[in-house]
Amino acid sequence: MTDTLNTTGTGLDAPAADIVAGLTVEEKASLTSGASFWTTQGVERAGIPAIVLTDGPHGVRLQKGSADHLGIGDSVPATCFPPAVALGSTFDPELLERVGTALGEEARAEGVGVLLGPGVNIKRSPLCGRNFEYLSEDPIISGVLGAALVNGLQSQGVGGSLKHFAANNQEHDRMSSSSDVDPRPLREIYLRGFQRVVEDAQPWTVMCSYNRLNGVYTSEDPWLLNTVLRDDWGFEGLVVSDWGAVNDRVVGLPAGLDLEMPSSDGRSAAKLLAAVADGSLDESALDVGARRVVELVQKAVDGARPSTGSGSEGYDVDAHHALAREAAGRGAVLLKNDDAILPLDASASVAVIGAFAEKPRYQGAGSSLINPTKLDNALDAITEYAGQDNVAFAAGFTTDGSDGAALVAPAVELAASKDVVVLFLGLPGSYESEGFDREDLHLPAEQLALLESVVAANPRTVVVLANGGVVELPFADDVPAILEGWLGGQAGGSAIADVLYGAVNPSGRLAETIPVKLADTPAYLNFPGDFGHVRYGEGLFVGYRWYDARDAEVRYPFGHGLSYTSFGYSDLSVAADASGLTVRVTVTNTGDRAGREVVQVYTGLAASGVQRAPREIKAFANVALEAGESREVEIAVRDEDLAYWDVRVDRWVVEPGAYSVEVGASSRDIRLSAVVEVEGEQVRIPLSLESSIAELAADPIAGPIVMQAMGSFASGMADTDIFDEGGLDKMMASFPIGKLAGFPGVPVTPEQIQQLIDLSNSQRG
Amino acid sequence: MTDTLNTTGTGLDAPAADIVAGLTVEEKASLTSGASFWTTQGVERAGIPAIVLTDGPHGVRLQKGSADHLGIGDSVPATCFPPAVALGSTFDPELLERVGTALGEEARAEGVGVLLGPGVNIKRSPLCGRNFEYLSEDPIISGVLGAALVNGLQSQGVGGSLKHFAANNQEHDRMSSSSDVDPRPLREIYLRGFQRVVEDAQPWTVMCSYNRLNGVYTSEDPWLLNTVLRDDWGFEGLVVSDWGAVNDRVVGLPAGLDLEMPSSDGRSAAKLLAAVADGSLDESALDVGARRVVELVQKAVDGARPSTGSGSEGYDVDAHHALAREAAGRGAVLLKNDDAILPLDASASVAVIGAFAEKPRYQGAGSSLINPTKLDNALDAITEYAGQDNVAFAAGFTTDGSDGAALVAPAVELAASKDVVVLFLGLPGSYESEGFDREDLHLPAEQLALLESVVAANPRTVVVLANGGVVELPFADDVPAILEGWLGGQAGGSAIADVLYGAVNPSGRLAETIPVKLADTPAYLNFPGDFGHVRYGEGLFVGYRWYDARDAEVRYPFGHGLSYTSFGYSDLSVAADASGLTVRVTVTNTGDRAGREVVQVYTGLAASGVQRAPREIKAFANVALEAGESREVEIAVRDEDLAYWDVRVDRWVVEPGAYSVEVGASSRDIRLSAVVEVEGEQVRIPLSLESSIAELAADPIAGPIVMQAMGSFASGMADTDIFDEGGLDKMMASFPIGKLAGFPGVPVTPEQIQQLIDLSNSQRG
Repeated sequence: MTDTLNTTGTGLDAPAADIVAGLTVEEKASLTSGASFWTTQGVERAGIPAIVLTDGPHGVRLQKGSADHLGIGDSVPATCFPPAVALGSTFDPELLERVGTALGEEARAEGVGVLLGPGVNIKRSPLCGRNFEYLSEDPIISGVLGAALVNGLQSQGVGGSLKHFAANNQEHDRMSSSSDVDPRPLREIYLRGFQRVVEDAQPWTVMCSYNRLNGVYTSEDPWLLNTVLRDDWGFEGLVVSDWGAVNDRVVGLPAGLDLEMPSSDGRSAAKLLAAVADGSLDESALDVGARRVVELVQKAVDGARPSTGSGSEGYDVDAHHALAREAAGRGAVLLKNDDAILPLDASASVAVIGAFAEKPRYQGAGSSLINPTKLDNALDAITEYAGQDNVAFAAGFTTDGSDGAALVAPAVELAASKDVVVLFLGLPGSYESEGFDREDLHLPAEQLALLESVVAANPRTVVVLANGGVVELPFADDVPAILEGWLGGQAGGSAIADVLYGAVNPSGRLAETIPVKLADTPAYLNFPGDFGHVRYGEGLFVGYRWYDARDAEVRYPFGHGLSYTSFGYSDLSVAADASGLTVRVTVTNTGDRAGREVVQVYTGLAASGVQRAPREIKAFANVALEAGESREVEIAVRDEDLAYWDVRVDRWVVEPGAYSVEVGASSRDIRLSAVVEVEGEQVRIPLSLESSIAELAADPIAGPIVMQAMGSFASGMADTDIFDEGGLDKMMASFPIGKLAGFPGVPVTPEQIQQLIDLSNSQRG
Repeated sequence: MTDTLNTTGTGLDAPAADIVAGLTVEEKASLTSGASFWTTQGVERAGIPAIVLTDGPHGVRLQKGSADHLGIGDSVPATCFPPAVALGSTFDPELLERVGTALGEEARAEGVGVLLGPGVNIKRSPLCGRNFEYLSEDPIISGVLGAALVNGLQSQGVGGSLKHFAANNQEHDRMSSSSDVDPRPLREIYLRGFQRVVEDAQPWTVMCSYNRLNGVYTSEDPWLLNTVLRDDWGFEGLVVSDWGAVNDRVVGLPAGLDLEMPSSDGRSAAKLLAAVADGSLDESALDVGARRVVELVQKAVDGARPSTGSGSEGYDVDAHHALAREAAGRGAVLLKNDDAILPLDASASVAVIGAFAEKPRYQGAGSSLINPTKLDNALDAITEYAGQDNVAFAAGFTTDGSDGAALVAPAVELAASKDVVVLFLGLPGSYESEGFDREDLHLPAEQLALLESVVAANPRTVVVLANGGVVELPFADDVPAILEGWLGGQAGGSAIADVLYGAVNPSGRLAETIPVKLADTPAYLNFPGDFGHVRYGEGLFVGYRWYDARDAEVRYPFGHGLSYTSFGYSDLSVAADASGLTVRVTVTNTGDRAGREVVQVYTGLAASGVQRAPREIKAFANVALEAGESREVEIAVRDEDLAYWDVRVDRWVVEPGAYSVEVGASSRDIRLSAVVEVEGEQVRIPLSLESSIAELAADPIAGPIVMQAMGSFASGMADTDIFDEGGLDKMMASFPIGKLAGFPGVPVTPEQIQQLIDLSNSQRG
């Protein structure tokens, strides 16, 4: 579809505002909606070509030929990189930037101007059907990794589309449900990852979500799209609707939604023109939207330089497959490995059991479904490592819902006959998809039953999991090893074999907690909501923040992941300055093979004046060390990442105090900790009659005067204990001074208090 | 202070509206604020006397002589009945009505027109400092018992004051904090108890709380005070402010706050008059407020008939003390009783250990602090049962924070020397009060240490607890028996002895869950909020609803309480009709002594279309049975108590379906269950373009037509799986039909859909 860009006219070199100034109002209106399912509207007369936007996020899903009108039919072959669930577990922005770069190469080769990704929504509940497209339950992890993907992608002249903005954390009723979120969790959890990507990578586009946020469709929320995204964060690009997310186009355009997708067959342009005509919409809103569309087209045209890829497809298919394999191996998380049963010895005989070993589950359903250039399976790859004679396979179960009872006995028999079993379990594709949420976290019952029989036949059973959202692992104590392979993309099968045989030393880490059971999860009783509203009642306490704050058991904690080697931590030092914290720690590979450690830095402020999680990850380093190698790692924690959102002043504030800095290998494997004094900022709220007695008493100007007056009042009341020897009685400390002063007989009047307050406020500024 | 009422003029017999019609605007304004700390403003000219309102809720706290201006100094002697925490645990409305009657007698004898109580706020968090003044974590329990108290009180011609209205569930920042509560939990949990008391007992007054509700001070919330309280519930009385709760009097009066207390020294009247003068307040608001004050005065004057009490105080002090003893014994909850260590044999030698045995903790601090007519202690009462020679006492610790280290050894020595130990533990008075919340649920560390040593010396240790809010019981597995005595009022000490020696067979039940630890509690991460807002993020899942829904461990469940006898359940039958459910069950005392069983009825609706707790208590019966006696108990569940609050139509709706009815001895000791079909009401929401494809498909008129059109569309898209054989694809089911119809190429337009919707809505009505 590169011909779309061939219409480029010379006029496109002018500033976009100048180009827009030369357009008719009809042309401007037309620019703000798509021309078809995947293309923008061009203006031939003005030399403005159409460009192509297409899914995303972990591969190029370009539909050629006649579109299917709902945009979810077949697409051209492209590398299916691991979905975000696996990419997030790499904890490696450098790797993700390479994946982004490869995605950009493929998109460019196909004439795509904008690839719709990455998705950085927070995994609020493990039930969310689209969690496989998201990176983490933590906003810093989501933001750092999302920015790396965008940077890689855009380095190739292809735009990213940061989605789904915002607070779209479920699929249930996603087209209408309102995510009701308080200011602090909204800023600190749900928007923070988006903010990080915008500030660090300036994606060409941001995609608004389907849902409403606190009652307002995100497609028409001026606070979200203009105030927060552009004014607060400095976003310079275009906001595009998710496909079908537009509710009222005339409301959405001035709210900051520049481009509606897909086409509305001219309906929206007609509405916009009517609104301009009747004065309900200022034409300047069309100017702004059209200008941003033209700016996007300019970037896309500028980026559409000839391919540098070596392959006939315009990129190196084999190299990209190899990268997909590397990423999948790096994303696999070794949850358990008792008695070093892994890595496997290539000379051991292996029973490969489970249908997924042969027919891999490697991506999720919905708009991200890629038509892969190749497809590896684990059975072939294991056979390559161990040799035909050492490997035998039994399906054990079916993945299509058909009766697999006859498959059990041969699998169990096979298990008993080999040195070791590698048992591939996972969620069938029908279990998780864009468009609906899961109802539980169970693996299919027949798989759990099979596991029990297999383990009974051969306790040396390694479980390999394929799933896009986390699953309950009731068998965790019954098997010696569990490797969580997630959805690994088209090379996921071979990547699993790489890890099983030690060609890749596992370094994946959990970017989301694996709970013991669904009912333990933070949003359990607030998901997915009723009648169009879902209350984010757990507030700030999402993921590990919840389990830590409640001192609750988990199956495997956030940040967890084993290696075939071991790492020691020493010599922690932390320094604070205006830019944040500088954390230095020495990490030593204390084992006998090379490996990677993800050094995680968590902070906390136990004496905080606001509610906080016990620890929050603020930064990390992904360190490759040879056996025996030792290295000092320096990790920067940005000052702004220490901030909380202060609802009194409606901005970020770094609270002064003694912060704990915990460094470790997971959120529950803290190896070293330190305390660092952070200067921060004292927020001064002007006094008022609603200020409490305690607040007034603490005021250096008004406090002593009022307390003297009240003190003589108190001393006349010997039979009460309003004021004790130490100062204020606890019961009265929070009494608003204005209300107390209104009581009969109290020796100061509200008017006198107001005078003192005015005096203090004016002197303290 | 009976002289206050002696100013009664003959004019008071006229209808209140007529009386008010004869008042000047200044007189009307003056009536709507108090004249002093405890009295209303009279109008002598018009024969309107002042009346006295005073605390409450579990005794008459009347301050005579010069007031202390903050209203918390000494008061006249009165019976200190058990605070609400103990009364709630009786699960006995008949008993509470007798307590209310006695309170009314005392108030009347003292010339009090309104006694400020009961408090029916929900125990949202066990940390709330005022939980001892509240009845339960469940609204039905709070409502049924609160109504009984009001009915008893008002039978004596003394008004109740239902408080604190509403959503005042913490003391922290109570004067300004906004309780941010969603509609369903607000109606179903936080208002439901108030509603029940209003509907069943018509308290003369309702007291607004200090806090804000969803941002609005309850003292000036017309939705709360007029729409909900009066229009929805039919409240016929007066709303009085909590003392100092008025924020803006001119806003509050028309919002439904009739009477401000205490006096504002004329400030409020002046503001009201100024507002009438400048037209910002309609004088009719003064008419309404003044009329309600006059109506209240009329009731108080009418109720102020001569005392019928036999004592010199105007009531029978001894009889009231005996009633306080009965109530305290009935409120004590036997949590554990291994090996039937209780009841004690009067011939056994007893080590009574713990300072509380001698100096009882029997009430909470703050406005409810009663000056008792007598004060029993457990040590004396135990000595009466067992005889001087069998009883010895050691304090073991202090309760005033002074060093008690020297008290430990003698206590442990004593423990070792006796047949059995009764160890009195509890919270010192400084731990819990009106005005501030607790910070943890711990008993003092020195008490826990003492327990360990005592149990080591003598494992036959019975723990007796004195506390107003629940405490963690980490030692529950280490002692054979625990008796929770709460705060038992002035006869609590003797009542404990009654239970220990079996004169009273315990029948108290937990009206609130005892959690394993604070961090497990529902509101833990949303309490007490930051910066003036507390989000009720746990929603409907308060108390046992939370633990049951999350399948979480508790120390002792809601409804739990042991007896010295045992009860069998049989022959459950449930019938449903328009008035609700009729539950019949036969209860048999299968033990060898008389006792009381609290038969609890829980309902659930697993297949509900809205979020619900697994079970909710809807009714109960308190049944006294002789040893071996069997009785069929009939328990009515009101139809309205099956309803949920439907936010789509903003009213109560009984959902049709197969309800589970569970009958048992606690929320986790269900003995019998049945399923009953409830007809309920199908709520029909008109279709719109925002309706989902699934909703449209289910419509009998529009559905078939649209599906036919979409079906041919779908069949042209063989390469997608939008429509599977069974009908709608899960991914598309929730897609709004209006948005789908706007997609390019979709064979129906939004306009066509709208026509069909209009047709269906008009035909279905």
